Amino acid sequence: MMTSSSSSSVMRKLDVVSPVPSDIDIANSVQPIHISEIANHLNLTPNHYDLYGKYKAKVLLSALDELQESKDGYYVVVGGITPTPLGEGKSTTTVGLCQALGAFLDKKVVTCIRQPSQGPTFGIKGGAAGGGYSQVIPMDEFNLHLTGDIHAITAANNLLAAAIDTRIFHESTQSDKALFNRDVMFRRLKKFGISKTNPDDLTPEEVNKFARLDIDPDSITWRRVMDINDRFLRKITVGQGPDEKGMVRETAFDISVASEIMAVLALTTSLTDMRERLGKMVIGNSKSGDPVTADDLGIGGALTVLMKDAIHPTLMQTLEGTPVLVHAGPFANIAHGNSSIVADKIALKLVGPGGFVVTEAGFGADIGTEKFMNIKCRYSGLTPQCAIIVATIRALKMHGGGPAVVAGKPLDHAYLTENVALVEAGCANLARHILNSKAYGANVIVAINKFSTDTDAELNAVKKAALDAGAYDAVICSHHAHGGRGAVDLGIAVQKACENATQPLKFLYPLDIGIKEKIEAIAKSYGASGVEYSEQAEKKIELYTKQGFSGLPICMAKTQYSFSDNAAAKGAPTGFILPIRDVRASIGAGFIYPLVGTMSTMPGLPTRPCFYDIDLDTTTGQVIGLS
Amino acid sequence: MMTSSSSSSVMRKLDVVSPVPSDIDIANSVQPIHISEIANHLNLTPNHYDLYGKYKAKVLLSALDELQESKDGYYVVVGGITPTPLGEGKSTTTVGLCQALGAFLDKKVVTCIRQPSQGPTFGIKGGAAGGGYSQVIPMDEFNLHLTGDIHAITAANNLLAAAIDTRIFHESTQSDKALFNRDVMFRRLKKFGISKTNPDDLTPEEVNKFARLDIDPDSITWRRVMDINDRFLRKITVGQGPDEKGMVRETAFDISVASEIMAVLALTTSLTDMRERLGKMVIGNSKSGDPVTADDLGIGGALTVLMKDAIHPTLMQTLEGTPVLVHAGPFANIAHGNSSIVADKIALKLVGPGGFVVTEAGFGADIGTEKFMNIKCRYSGLTPQCAIIVATIRALKMHGGGPAVVAGKPLDHAYLTENVALVEAGCANLARHILNSKAYGANVIVAINKFSTDTDAELNAVKKAALDAGAYDAVICSHHAHGGRGAVDLGIAVQKACENATQPLKFLYPLDIGIKEKIEAIAKSYGASGVEYSEQAEKKIELYTKQGFSGLPICMAKTQYSFSDNAAAKGAPTGFILPIRDVRASIGAGFIYPLVGTMSTMPGLPTRPCFYDIDLDTTTGQVIGLS
Repeated sequence: MMTSSSSSSVMRKLDVVSPVPSDIDIANSVQPIHISEIANHLNLTPNHYDLYGKYKAKVLLSALDELQESKDGYYVVVGGITPTPLGEGKSTTTVGLCQALGAFLDKKVVTCIRQPSQGPTFGIKGGAAGGGYSQVIPMDEFNLHLTGDIHAITAANNLLAAAIDTRIFHESTQSDKALFNRDVMFRRLKKFGISKTNPDDLTPEEVNKFARLDIDPDSITWRRVMDINDRFLRKITVGQGPDEKGMVRETAFDISVASEIMAVLALTTSLTDMRERLGKMVIGNSKSGDPVTADDLGIGGALTVLMKDAIHPTLMQTLEGTPVLVHAGPFANIAHGNSSIVADKIALKLVGPGGFVVTEAGFGADIGTEKFMNIKCRYSGLTPQCAIIVATIRALKMHGGGPAVVAGKPLDHAYLTENVALVEAGCANLARHILNSKAYGANVIVAINKFSTDTDAELNAVKKAALDAGAYDAVICSHHAHGGRGAVDLGIAVQKACENATQPLKFLYPLDIGIKEKIEAIAKSYGASGVEYSEQAEKKIELYTKQGFSGLPICMAKTQYSFSDNAAAKGAPTGFILPIRDVRASIGAGFIYPLVGTMSTMPGLPTRPCFYDIDLDTTTGQVIGLS
Repeated sequence: MMTSSSSSSVMRKLDVVSPVPSDIDIANSVQPIHISEIANHLNLTPNHYDLYGKYKAKVLLSALDELQESKDGYYVVVGGITPTPLGEGKSTTTVGLCQALGAFLDKKVVTCIRQPSQGPTFGIKGGAAGGGYSQVIPMDEFNLHLTGDIHAITAANNLLAAAIDTRIFHESTQSDKALFNRDVMFRRLKKFGISKTNPDDLTPEEVNKFARLDIDPDSITWRRVMDINDRFLRKITVGQGPDEKGMVRETAFDISVASEIMAVLALTTSLTDMRERLGKMVIGNSKSGDPVTADDLGIGGALTVLMKDAIHPTLMQTLEGTPVLVHAGPFANIAHGNSSIVADKIALKLVGPGGFVVTEAGFGADIGTEKFMNIKCRYSGLTPQCAIIVATIRALKMHGGGPAVVAGKPLDHAYLTENVALVEAGCANLARHILNSKAYGANVIVAINKFSTDTDAELNAVKKAALDAGAYDAVICSHHAHGGRGAVDLGIAVQKACENATQPLKFLYPLDIGIKEKIEAIAKSYGASGVEYSEQAEKKIELYTKQGFSGLPICMAKTQYSFSDNAAAKGAPTGFILPIRDVRASIGAGFIYPLVGTMSTMPGLPTRPCFYDIDLDTTTGQVIGLS
């Protein structure tokens, strides 16, 4: 058994006990290392990071500029099989693998994960810092506010929303000339190459054209957001105050992490690029069908100012003292659900050749890994050497035909006793994920996240099925129970996979084909035999194509609980027709997102929400009840 | 002329030029000192503060605990005469005075001011960091996000709002028994002294009583908030989604700084006290008329967790390197509009005997100083030695009968040329503020904030009127043009006033009289001859008295533009009847707030909002266009 190295590092030795205590008890039992020590160990000088308290720091983009000439480390993406509603331990595996690489295999390593939404933290899900002996700490700081990135997104998103309604209101109540006299209009004129600045020199048509955006209220796709599970905001009517003169409108709130600004943050590569993307976000159309952007509203700069600190990823640490970069947010359906490009890029430079960056892709690999490859890597230009697929016996049994797994209800007997046949049947799901992930060119490793009820026969059945399906390797891990020590074999396998990776990244589809052809390429990877478009979807595809947006990659908004649109279709369904209900566009972030079925973008609170248990010990200042 | 001392301090010498450049140009021309140096100069050790970047730090409440035995410094409150819509430089004077005391008079000094709302920053008002050569820097960090306190308030406020609607929804769709089985109910049972925990042992009435809050939707006073000027949220309908089964309700958003949680933050004295106050916030009544609290909803602990970092004030610096504590928020109508008690308390210990804490009270002294004395000092137990009233020739001319002053329009000729008679006539307003402020026992100093168009004859007329009205002193200051050097005379006067203060704090009203008697005492100080209550106000006073809340202090929600309810009534109106339209309660924060006329709690964006000018220079990272 290896032991934690300590000479060259700030790593911390874990005292592991059994049975595994609660997540918060483990997190609270460890004294975090001052984050400046973690930064120092990464060779970050104080001018390249800003402290946010003692255990968080923002790593500034200037670090990336300075390291521009350095070589990258190995790039590993962690996806999963189609999960049960309980989750199969993707974050836990991401963290555990890094603890193994950093604290046991003496590698330079950085974990890249997403900031959790506070909505689920207080709602149904609890925290998202990993679990057991593989966690990011301090757990409460990770789950609450962090360094304010999501709050900045909320502020920017809602400033834009307020600007839209107020703009329509002012255009409807004021003359062309009064509107024109706002001097921002002169800038807009300049943009259109007109040098006349005296309104009297312009024809009424010219004044009208440049002073009015003429937004079609029915076309507005920009909604307000809030980082709270507030179901009563799913559909609302605004503008009912007497001063708004009857300009009422139906709209809705989404959860903040579903904001296009979150997607911009995840996909941007620099401050200049972020300014561009925020400015070109499309909020709807003019009555004549032209896209209206944030810059048309004169607000792109203000949005960038609100987001200027959020662009810097947050440095934290694992239970074993390895570094973590937390950045961007969790929504893997209407967004792409990956950590940010800038975090991954900074991490790759910081670990350098021979080091490892392990980045998590949200939801099952059909969504997370697919978007990682076709959207995120396309924009970043990075190539992963290794793609991990996390699998559990529990989820494989479900895919093999086991009874439904429901959050909050006890697991059926089938999941607690040996049933190799069920596991083997379920491996069809795993096999398709392996096949799809392998097609991108990376070496695929299956990480079997072992539970105490799993038997050797079951675990070995998965290993065999994985190798048969073309995985580079399949490894049983126990990082939840043992920390990094439980993922040492996985770490060794990942190292070998990275060292032996030779293929370039192959995308699932090129960008220069039509929107429908791209959708169909992805649908095929799900096992669909065809795609069916609603009338609305057809219209939108036509509109976006006409507006010149058809060259963007596709971000499918689909359930994570099946390859298909039907969450109940487990395993590896084939022969189904994938229904596209609607198609939307995140032009600033840079993708078109088709809606496969109904996607809720605002969760609700359950009858027994997590907040019942959460409190502060006001004498020690410690958070209690966070899970 | 004195020059900035440098031996014993981290103070910075200002190079003052004339004419005064724009605020942002001045702010950007100065390299801020690393905040750890500022902290060090205050004898704060690193365990008592958390860095938030290089120029902000949260000073932890533990500093207060450690200094419990130390003696306090002098306590100075800055109010103003009834202002014009342009503002009379209260923040600028607060900052300038501190620059004088710290950088020129070699005193230990801390400025205590409020965090600005981002709504007006992007809307109509611009930043709030002072002005000219008397500013808090970095100006952009001061005006944006700061250390996330307002974002935390937004999150906590809206989590509670979501919990209210969801609770009503679940109570309307689920059985008593199902609701009862949420185990938080067992805690609620215990609170009521019932030890039975098996639902079957309870009578249906007992189950019903403890499982249901039975909130009357029409009684809900808790609204959602957003730190954005979003007029379309002034009146909205929520719950229109199909899943909410028709449980629609009319409600509204306020701007975040108007949240009761902001008032709690400003008035709390410790973590334990904040937990209590957040838990006892009343969100409405049950159908039988009992108040329903945050703790009844099981959410007091979660709110405290969301607010646990916000309770620590943020350390920043002035242009001349003196320390500033920024805390709590700006709404001086439905809140009390003062900086926080904890910031003032920490500051008083840090400066120690002979040092000065200068704290700003929002709006005119009829609102800001009155609430400072009767609410804030009542809860803190602190006594100010000196109350400053900031006056300008401009505002006094308006009170003397000058034409209306309108934001965004050029000033009338009357304000730009000498007119001593107009100034003298306007001093009636100043005189009443002096009289009212003096009644609390502090020595009153009038700070005449000099503009370049003011003449000596005008300035001397104000000095004379101030002394005639009983001011301890009246001093002409030019800190906007000259920084601390321009407020040295004011500093000397303040020092003398503090050293010679002898009286204890005398409140305007005792707590143990009725709500109406308290309202009438305040109305009398405005010059009113009586008070008129609407039917709604009468009903609410009766309700709050019945619910046991009549012993709280009163926080009048009144226009700041007149002593009366009529913003157009300038000078020192008398003989009017003050109308009370409604009465509301912030039970957690600890006050009753009568609404005098209509108070907007959600500003709007103007036709030409500030955000048009705001952008980021993406090569330097510098914010441009913030004013």
